[in-house]
Amino acid sequence: MPEKEAQARPKMVTASVLLIGDEILSGRTRDSNLSYIATHLNKIGIQVREARVIPDIEDVIVAAVNELRARYDYVFTTGGLGPTHDDITADAIARAFGVGIDYHPEAVKVLDEHYKETGGEFTKARMRMARLPEGAVMIANPLSKAPGFQIGNVFVMAGIPMIMQVMLDSLTDRLEGGAAMQSRTVTAQIGEGTIAERLGDLQLRHPEVGIGSYPYYRGKSFGTSIVMRAVDSRALEKVEQEVVALMREFGVEPLMGDRS
Amino acid sequence: MPEKEAQARPKMVTASVLLIGDEILSGRTRDSNLSYIATHLNKIGIQVREARVIPDIEDVIVAAVNELRARYDYVFTTGGLGPTHDDITADAIARAFGVGIDYHPEAVKVLDEHYKETGGEFTKARMRMARLPEGAVMIANPLSKAPGFQIGNVFVMAGIPMIMQVMLDSLTDRLEGGAAMQSRTVTAQIGEGTIAERLGDLQLRHPEVGIGSYPYYRGKSFGTSIVMRAVDSRALEKVEQEVVALMREFGVEPLMGDRS
Repeated sequence: MPEKEAQARPKMVTASVLLIGDEILSGRTRDSNLSYIATHLNKIGIQVREARVIPDIEDVIVAAVNELRARYDYVFTTGGLGPTHDDITADAIARAFGVGIDYHPEAVKVLDEHYKETGGEFTKARMRMARLPEGAVMIANPLSKAPGFQIGNVFVMAGIPMIMQVMLDSLTDRLEGGAAMQSRTVTAQIGEGTIAERLGDLQLRHPEVGIGSYPYYRGKSFGTSIVMRAVDSRALEKVEQEVVALMREFGVEPLMGDRS
Repeated sequence: MPEKEAQARPKMVTASVLLIGDEILSGRTRDSNLSYIATHLNKIGIQVREARVIPDIEDVIVAAVNELRARYDYVFTTGGLGPTHDDITADAIARAFGVGIDYHPEAVKVLDEHYKETGGEFTKARMRMARLPEGAVMIANPLSKAPGFQIGNVFVMAGIPMIMQVMLDSLTDRLEGGAAMQSRTVTAQIGEGTIAERLGDLQLRHPEVGIGSYPYYRGKSFGTSIVMRAVDSRALEKVEQEVVALMREFGVEPLMGDRS
């Protein structure tokens, strides 16, 4: 009954994250935005399938945005929205969509009020932060006021983690999630090579559950975390029980954790 | 005299980093390998121009490797070299290069000796870690022995940071760096919007120095770090002095740091 199968199959909503900034590629800044965005989206049933880190070069941004927005349901960008000469993301996104860019009246108003309140000067450079591509919708930034924006399926956010995070909260209502991915983690002090074959068999028998094996070294101790992910919680629980039984068979007592 | 210009122009060597692993895209693991690799390569005159994070899916790995190895001088991958079913990087790289994959005698020997010494069992699953694409050259792993490998301009390393780092040390002799990029950082408690216009002018007058502006918020304090990067140390020093003078003109005393 293909119809029933179609109903039963959970809807998958996909996303990509585009981190824009020379400072991440030079090694100067260690990015924390990707894991934050991925975790946030995961909770509402959106899976990040790809991330890219690219420099502040307009041609590169344009090409990446156009490739990713065609391939995934949503694209989230971070970085390049400030007032300085190296902040070129808004211009690049306008070019990627083939539209103009201009001062957005609401953005100008919000920033004007902000600088009046705080006593800062609303310089020509700061005015740049009120320029949005034509047809873009603002993403509110309660923290430092300069807005992000949405155009089509692309959400454009600041790179500073605190500001990115309030923008992500501001825009979340606009997203349509799919089936939420759930996960279980089972960790034990066992080498992954010891259980690898049996784990491979388990994966073959349960294609509906993604089984990942992550070895770790902490000082002189080592072990393996098995992470299981699925939208079907019953299947997930069954595989978790099998992994626990497998660990015990090899004489180690597993720890369970990280349920989400 | 075009010949002199060609001599004077520093050789730019480029790289991309490909982080392979579902755990980074799910948000479970926050990557630290990119900033480590970028910093390491920077010191020997290799600039990372792009990074990608992709899942453990063979078609995706093959496409990304082939795109990146054609575009950059070097490609560095991390992840997917272990003994479990989700470790498919070696097979994917072999397919990307259109070659077979088989047990590498030296890799088998190294692992066999390792497990004899440590009393571990050299299981069939662990044997998987001795499979290398045809024509690949091993990258030594003094820590846990299972090797990485190089094929063409692609260097394939483990995902566990400690192991990736020893592999990166092992392979560095094989890399040919270009002109080393130097950097200076000047930080001050000033909003970047205040100095943005003048900074833009400075960038226009000194295209040979990359000037990045990075605002920060720490608790209730905020400020801006100006990062200058160039291969020409005299040009770099001149721009640094101008940035310091600019900060002072606006009444703030800058801190200098992060020379490399």
